[in-house]
Amino acid sequence: MNDDVKSAFSTVKRARERGAYDRDTLYAILDATPVCHVGYTVEGRPVVTPTCHWRDGDYLYWHGSRISRALQSAIDHEVCITVTLFDGLVLARSAFHHSANYRSAMVFGRAELVDGDAAKTRALETFVETLFPERWGQLRPMSRKELNATSVLRLPIQEASAKVRTGPPKDDAEDLAQPVWAGVIPLQTVAGSPQPAPDMTVDVELPEHVTRYGAPAPDV
Amino acid sequence: MNDDVKSAFSTVKRARERGAYDRDTLYAILDATPVCHVGYTVEGRPVVTPTCHWRDGDYLYWHGSRISRALQSAIDHEVCITVTLFDGLVLARSAFHHSANYRSAMVFGRAELVDGDAAKTRALETFVETLFPERWGQLRPMSRKELNATSVLRLPIQEASAKVRTGPPKDDAEDLAQPVWAGVIPLQTVAGSPQPAPDMTVDVELPEHVTRYGAPAPDV
Repeated sequence: MNDDVKSAFSTVKRARERGAYDRDTLYAILDATPVCHVGYTVEGRPVVTPTCHWRDGDYLYWHGSRISRALQSAIDHEVCITVTLFDGLVLARSAFHHSANYRSAMVFGRAELVDGDAAKTRALETFVETLFPERWGQLRPMSRKELNATSVLRLPIQEASAKVRTGPPKDDAEDLAQPVWAGVIPLQTVAGSPQPAPDMTVDVELPEHVTRYGAPAPDV
Repeated sequence: MNDDVKSAFSTVKRARERGAYDRDTLYAILDATPVCHVGYTVEGRPVVTPTCHWRDGDYLYWHGSRISRALQSAIDHEVCITVTLFDGLVLARSAFHHSANYRSAMVFGRAELVDGDAAKTRALETFVETLFPERWGQLRPMSRKELNATSVLRLPIQEASAKVRTGPPKDDAEDLAQPVWAGVIPLQTVAGSPQPAPDMTVDVELPEHVTRYGAPAPDV
């Protein structure tokens, strides 16, 4: 990771061989899935809530209902946002060396509320466009009521860390002759056939921002 | 959820329509993936670490290196373990009603160290057998050094919550005629072809605990 991004906590630093500290690696992980887990505290107790995030430059964003406890507990408080891609199960000759292939990024810091209709709208546009390019322009503008009901938070990507494990099991030399299958079961998330809403009354073509997920076209 | 499992935090209770509070639903989510995110605090700051978990009865287990800060910070402290299955992207006619289909479970409580070689070994056996039935018996016993290097933690499943969203977008009636594609892009995690370790020196058949992941057989 660059000098301006400091690695956080010895727990992260310790697994040195799995550390991947450059900003490109970190951003590639953050951008590889919309799902993250936000850690925050409520009355001193840790709480972890799954949500969707998006990145814009050197900030990580997420959003939700304005009255959500998960958001209210995060604003101006320390949070940890963790993004994990689970890439495979690693089967070794010994129980001890079983492992998982994964890519994981953690970002630490104080969550900021994105304030003002214009900034909020711009952030939500980036969210929609990140997941579904060219969709925002097809949607009606958000109403004032909808904007008021939504909070957008962001976290500067300053203190962060990435960990990556890839490749086959790393067995002890004396275990290599054990008569047991060793290797990796790779895992990946794939899209299924898009399911049009049953209440679709208009005839619209399947847009590219849906087909880009690589799913087969639905039977219609 | 049964009376003996209390739902935690208003943040969870608020999303009433997505609440699924019975123990069967909760356990089905916990058992549907080995990946969880553990939330704990380090010097008052929240930290979220991905790891693998397994369930044995009414306890959730996880493990790691004895010297891991993530484990050491959890023992006898409050943690939150969250398990999330991301099932789909939900595209609505308005930006506001875009959503995600998911199943998520949160378990709160004080993490306990599983102490003693016998209890630790039994827990790790359950972990291996949960993921890979009949594999434990094929592996050499764990050495004392390996056991000493491993900590196993558990959390009683007493205070927990589950949230589930399924189905199509829920649009406002006045938006149904918007000329935009609406529906769900379903997502799922699938196994690829098993990759035998390049240093496999013995000829062993691909075991059922590998093929059960539904992946095609490797080209060998």
